[in-house]
Amino acid sequence: MIICGVDPGLTRCGVGIIEAGPSRRLSFIHVDVVRSDPHQPQDARLLTIFNGLCAHMDAYLPDVVSIERVFAQENRNTVLGTAQAAGLAMVAAAQRGIPVSLHTPTEAKLAVTGNGKADKAQVQTMVAKILSLNAPPSPPDAADSLALAICHALRPEGAIQGGEREGHLTAAQKQWVQALQKSGKRGVRRDM
Amino acid sequence: MIICGVDPGLTRCGVGIIEAGPSRRLSFIHVDVVRSDPHQPQDARLLTIFNGLCAHMDAYLPDVVSIERVFAQENRNTVLGTAQAAGLAMVAAAQRGIPVSLHTPTEAKLAVTGNGKADKAQVQTMVAKILSLNAPPSPPDAADSLALAICHALRPEGAIQGGEREGHLTAAQKQWVQALQKSGKRGVRRDM
Repeated sequence: MIICGVDPGLTRCGVGIIEAGPSRRLSFIHVDVVRSDPHQPQDARLLTIFNGLCAHMDAYLPDVVSIERVFAQENRNTVLGTAQAAGLAMVAAAQRGIPVSLHTPTEAKLAVTGNGKADKAQVQTMVAKILSLNAPPSPPDAADSLALAICHALRPEGAIQGGEREGHLTAAQKQWVQALQKSGKRGVRRDM
Repeated sequence: MIICGVDPGLTRCGVGIIEAGPSRRLSFIHVDVVRSDPHQPQDARLLTIFNGLCAHMDAYLPDVVSIERVFAQENRNTVLGTAQAAGLAMVAAAQRGIPVSLHTPTEAKLAVTGNGKADKAQVQTMVAKILSLNAPPSPPDAADSLALAICHALRPEGAIQGGEREGHLTAAQKQWVQALQKSGKRGVRRDM
């Protein structure tokens, strides 16, 4: 299964592609950051991001697109552009009939580090380790997009739905299940 | 000049088309509300809104698209969907090479009623009067999209850029210029 992770942003939008094989074996395929010029009008910037996302989906034909869930209470200066970029990723996927999965930053951090409050460097290091990369992906937007793709591949809901018992989850997955249960959520909601 | 006004929203997105002729004569062409089902996943809803906006632009070939400017401090429950719908309207316009103009709700209300704090009924009544409609456009999203189109047609910046002296502005336009000057803004910014 090919998974495309999207870390949405108007200035930098991370796009990471991985393959999830049998026994949850994950392989790195591609990572990129689609950028738009802050000096351009907003409509031109959004079109640049949309075209970049469409080009990646057409090139790598993902089976699912895993996008960061955006919350209204986030940084007021950037939240609208971030929400718009996430919306464009959803439309690009929906146009192609590709299912969309939304994951919070906490879920993505839990999935790759076992710590929902991990910092950017920890996420970069663990993404590199999980995908056997020679160096941590940079900038953080690139690492975050791969973390979102990994998060979708390793989500405990998928494991349990797939017939694996919770006793067979990794330590990080068990922590994730516990953290989700604690916060009253149990897995992935598809709509905001 | 054909102007397409867009009142962005994820559940209801107003689309109003008018023609601005010589001497600022305004004619009604079309109004519609593109709707998406709140029970559908968000990606499907955004695609429905995007396809509706694209269809209207392709049918009426506007020279400019006038979209409501969205602010981060608005209603937290709906602001992200509103921002995403506004982003989709910008991308639909940019894909077609149509210029985009963003106007605040206050600017639109000032343009049609002379009062930046007018209520929805006042906007509906004045939109009907300006466009010689037999009845006020309903729902409010429809009236608001027409108000945004009218706002772009009557904007005092356009009048002054077009060589008209401020003395020739209508009473509502003069109030608008004064209100914009008071708030430190002088006309239309193209980017957010």
